[in-house]
Amino acid sequence: MLSAEDNVLLTRIDPGTPMGSLMRHYWIPALPSDRLPGPDCDPVRVRLMGESLVAFRDTEGRVGLLDERCPHRTASLYFGRNEESGIRCVYHGWKFDIHGDCLDIPSEPAGRGRADRIKAIAYPCIERGGLVWTYMGPPDKRPPFPDLEWTLVPDSHRFVTRRLQDCNWLQALEGGFDPTHLSFLHKGDLIPGVDFPLPVASEFLPTGAGFICAYAREMFGKTVWCGETFLMPFHKLIPTELPGAHVWAPVDDETTMLYSIDYNPDAPLTQAQREAHESGRLIHAANEAGSDRTIQNRGNDYMIDRAVQRSGRSYTGIPGVGVQDGAIQESMGRIADRTREHLRPSDAGIVRLRRYLLNAVAEFQEKGAVPALDPTAYRQRPIYAFAPLSVGLHALLPAHDAAVAGSAAWAVAESLA
Amino acid sequence: MLSAEDNVLLTRIDPGTPMGSLMRHYWIPALPSDRLPGPDCDPVRVRLMGESLVAFRDTEGRVGLLDERCPHRTASLYFGRNEESGIRCVYHGWKFDIHGDCLDIPSEPAGRGRADRIKAIAYPCIERGGLVWTYMGPPDKRPPFPDLEWTLVPDSHRFVTRRLQDCNWLQALEGGFDPTHLSFLHKGDLIPGVDFPLPVASEFLPTGAGFICAYAREMFGKTVWCGETFLMPFHKLIPTELPGAHVWAPVDDETTMLYSIDYNPDAPLTQAQREAHESGRLIHAANEAGSDRTIQNRGNDYMIDRAVQRSGRSYTGIPGVGVQDGAIQESMGRIADRTREHLRPSDAGIVRLRRYLLNAVAEFQEKGAVPALDPTAYRQRPIYAFAPLSVGLHALLPAHDAAVAGSAAWAVAESLA
Amino acid sequence: MLSAEDNVLLTRIDPGTPMGSLMRHYWIPALPSDRLPGPDCDPVRVRLMGESLVAFRDTEGRVGLLDERCPHRTASLYFGRNEESGIRCVYHGWKFDIHGDCLDIPSEPAGRGRADRIKAIAYPCIERGGLVWTYMGPPDKRPPFPDLEWTLVPDSHRFVTRRLQDCNWLQALEGGFDPTHLSFLHKGDLIPGVDFPLPVASEFLPTGAGFICAYAREMFGKTVWCGETFLMPFHKLIPTELPGAHVWAPVDDETTMLYSIDYNPDAPLTQAQREAHESGRLIHAANEAGSDRTIQNRGNDYMIDRAVQRSGRSYTGIPGVGVQDGAIQESMGRIADRTREHLRPSDAGIVRLRRYLLNAVAEFQEKGAVPALDPTAYRQRPIYAFAPLSVGLHALLPAHDAAVAGSAAWAVAESLA
Repeated sequence: MLSAEDNVLLTRIDPGTPMGSLMRHYWIPALPSDRLPGPDCDPVRVRLMGESLVAFRDTEGRVGLLDERCPHRTASLYFGRNEESGIRCVYHGWKFDIHGDCLDIPSEPAGRGRADRIKAIAYPCIERGGLVWTYMGPPDKRPPFPDLEWTLVPDSHRFVTRRLQDCNWLQALEGGFDPTHLSFLHKGDLIPGVDFPLPVASEFLPTGAGFICAYAREMFGKTVWCGETFLMPFHKLIPTELPGAHVWAPVDDETTMLYSIDYNPDAPLTQAQREAHESGRLIHAANEAGSDRTIQNRGNDYMIDRAVQRSGRSYTGIPGVGVQDGAIQESMGRIADRTREHLRPSDAGIVRLRRYLLNAVAEFQEKGAVPALDPTAYRQRPIYAFAPLSVGLHALLPAHDAAVAGSAAWAVAESLA
Repeated sequence: MLSAEDNVLLTRIDPGTPMGSLMRHYWIPALPSDRLPGPDCDPVRVRLMGESLVAFRDTEGRVGLLDERCPHRTASLYFGRNEESGIRCVYHGWKFDIHGDCLDIPSEPAGRGRADRIKAIAYPCIERGGLVWTYMGPPDKRPPFPDLEWTLVPDSHRFVTRRLQDCNWLQALEGGFDPTHLSFLHKGDLIPGVDFPLPVASEFLPTGAGFICAYAREMFGKTVWCGETFLMPFHKLIPTELPGAHVWAPVDDETTMLYSIDYNPDAPLTQAQREAHESGRLIHAANEAGSDRTIQNRGNDYMIDRAVQRSGRSYTGIPGVGVQDGAIQESMGRIADRTREHLRPSDAGIVRLRRYLLNAVAEFQEKGAVPALDPTAYRQRPIYAFAPLSVGLHALLPAHDAAVAGSAAWAVAESLA
Repeated sequence: MLSAEDNVLLTRIDPGTPMGSLMRHYWIPALPSDRLPGPDCDPVRVRLMGESLVAFRDTEGRVGLLDERCPHRTASLYFGRNEESGIRCVYHGWKFDIHGDCLDIPSEPAGRGRADRIKAIAYPCIERGGLVWTYMGPPDKRPPFPDLEWTLVPDSHRFVTRRLQDCNWLQALEGGFDPTHLSFLHKGDLIPGVDFPLPVASEFLPTGAGFICAYAREMFGKTVWCGETFLMPFHKLIPTELPGAHVWAPVDDETTMLYSIDYNPDAPLTQAQREAHESGRLIHAANEAGSDRTIQNRGNDYMIDRAVQRSGRSYTGIPGVGVQDGAIQESMGRIADRTREHLRPSDAGIVRLRRYLLNAVAEFQEKGAVPALDPTAYRQRPIYAFAPLSVGLHALLPAHDAAVAGSAAWAVAESLA
């Protein structure tokens, strides 16, 4: 459990909050690149970190992300005209480029000179891995983009979806560092016909960008080591046969945009793999048409089928591994009341995560320190490997580290840097 | 009128409030028994007294009512598996029985021993009169179940419905102790062709479980004495030819679940009687399919027909006596602002009720005293009898009391005790 | 920009607020007269100035506007019976006339005498220009009804619509004193084929009821002088070829009822003029059937057509000048955050308006002074006239003033006074 104070400290991300300020020192996904299909396309509303923004792609194809409110009289730039390398507020025609610089004040015949002093709030954007990412922190602290392998492989190697969760980002993130729920919540659904056993051993490995909680399970007649990798501030690398990832980007304190990724570091995904991801049976979920809201949602109890649940074919009766996570995380309330918890040794991953974050916030508040800004610290791939328990994880790490080090992605990273 | 302070004191029932704490010393209806149709059936969400709960029926058919949040990590037990004499949280498989005892922590291989220390919040339940009732107060203060006659007759003798009201419990309850509104709000609708006259005399009779406000009316060429019976904390016995009852169970401060009951103490209800109750013309109301929400509701102005109202065939133009009450009570706002009232002598019943409750809360706050816990104090039947005004109510009471004392229900009560 | 304190001071209009108290010293439109079609018609709910009211027309055809809550037990008079020169609460039959006097307490056989002491909150009403207007201030301060020309012409000369805006009244009103937005927001839509140029000169003319901001534009090969006339507390006279008007009546702090008027001072509107107003292309907008909500609204992004916006045929792609105003005003948020603005010289009209209102509130708070109560101070017609810039506005004023002074409307005003 957490104290009420620590629960507030870790969960709240509005401008000016400690965690909100710390998190703004990292690159945050704002929207899929294809929501801005081309130069001068329609603007798009973005709600992120408790802020209302407008995204657009300018005539050169560069992405702008501005505060929704025009600095003149606070009208919404969403209704703006996106033209000639800037977005014009339709109230009085004031025009801003992707940097927030005011290019034109046509409502003042002699006003151009003074326009230099007007700035719209603008967050720099970068496109990686099919997404637009933004940096909302102090300009002089902007770090290089982290070398996340899934953002660096060709589009053909990657499958990405996103969806809204009606809960705080942290309880969603915590679900990623909870190895035991695989044996219950997802029972019967992760691998058809295979019960995911409880871990029989675990190891904790700190990294330059967070940590790895690695767990050994006896399955398929072998010992499988899976490393659940946390990367600041809200990334998880998912250890499956082909790697995956989740990013939990806060929309506001009570809503989260989850990006789910499957990828092959070395080859295009096959048609069968894409179809499996599209099926919604695994970490991805189907959304309502034209929406980021899942078809299975709070309003319909995630389409739980009690007969299927009772049959044991699925532990929950809720179809889809990803929706199961969303359902149980949302069921805790918009912001989980962690003062009422009773944690056990099997919750060690969650305890590690909270300690890491509490420590990071404390260091940030006391010293202004921000961990994990080195992009190369993100050069990781989730551990998924076989070794007898008697041999242990450490025997696997050299080969794993060599595979990671040999990834083709880092050459891309260096070409982009 | 009430002071703003007293209005808060009487109406608020969340955990920790004075009235909420006092009310939790009584048995409160939680849901109809048939919403839990059999052993290991689907769990049901229950919102009661400002708390979110989950009801289930275990393998032995016993009803459990637990706090919705699993004590492990606060996931909702509503999605739980109801199996083998307990409900399992689907997040990690923790299992709780109807007492809230943790039976199993399968996520911890060696965790069973420690499970003894984990308790879910559980409220004891009892089934009476077709309903599940719960006790949410201090365990050592739990009283015997009150001998309410309608809960003790065979199912064949009873007709029960329930529905939500979008207002505080007290303003709904007060409607039950307001004899004059029968001559206005329900004019033309209580007994077809009969105008309910104003009372010509009244008497106040304290009882061991509350009080009776008895009123004489000249109607049918006779003097009719009707006793509106209040029983702690939210019961009313309705004096009609065959008796009835209402129970206003708080869902939260701004919502009430009204249970309406008609019964025959001595014989099964006839088909014609059941049809009259089902018609929605009297105290019962028709709900939307699969819902506790009435078809006539705030959103459609209770289907008021102004032409019917204007014709005088109905005073309100709103069909149904029960819906008329709900409409006018909800129209006062979610929690009536009693500082703005102007009460008159004809509001004496309401004044009595408030004084009784204010006194009970004061005694409870000062001394911890809780009135009306003796179950036999509830052995009452509403007074409905004829006697000339010159003779008066007291002439009727011996026969009424003898009839009540002779009720077959009390033998049932003793067999259940 | 405004300070946060001044922004609160100017925008909030609930009972007891400074601006709310000042505004209650003026006549406020409550609803169209035809919503109360005849004597003893159905009551109508009115939400105005943050208060919940009920309007009715009594047997003599007079309009009553009472607090929605019956003073007896706070039930809603909306469900009341409107009959025999008063409205009866259907709970207990208490009856109130349009003055709020209690005419009858039938629930108390001997209660009539005491009824004299019961008063419902009632606001006096007057009907002018097809609308019911009310006065919600101190009875002894009630001013005569202002001589607004559009309220005094025959019905045949006038076209009036109303609609809800989901924003505070002030940001809607401010839109009326912003001459430059005509060249942007409404570009291409005000006069087909004509680009509204920016003003080339302006003059500020104080009046006894507010002020006029007059602007000269070079268009149609001439210099056109248009005077945007502000009249306390929320009126605008619109300078077009035939005059128009807007009234922004606060529903509550976050909602406004906009009344839009076009009229001909001297002749009936032609069928073609009525059809142009009904088209929704100009200041009027089409509402959902039986509602004051526009068909184009926040929920559907005002039916913006981005292709039309991109084509330049319309600056916004939102059809209808009135809806364009509503869209951009609502886009600022329910109450615009004026601390974030950056005003420019072209915003002088808005600055004048705020200064006028801030000064009025200050005088009211300090001295109880209320400006602009003389009804004849409202005898104005918006300036719309042609004169070379070298000649200037002042050359036009004598003829304009003479035309206004000669209006047939004032004879009507005197006959009504």
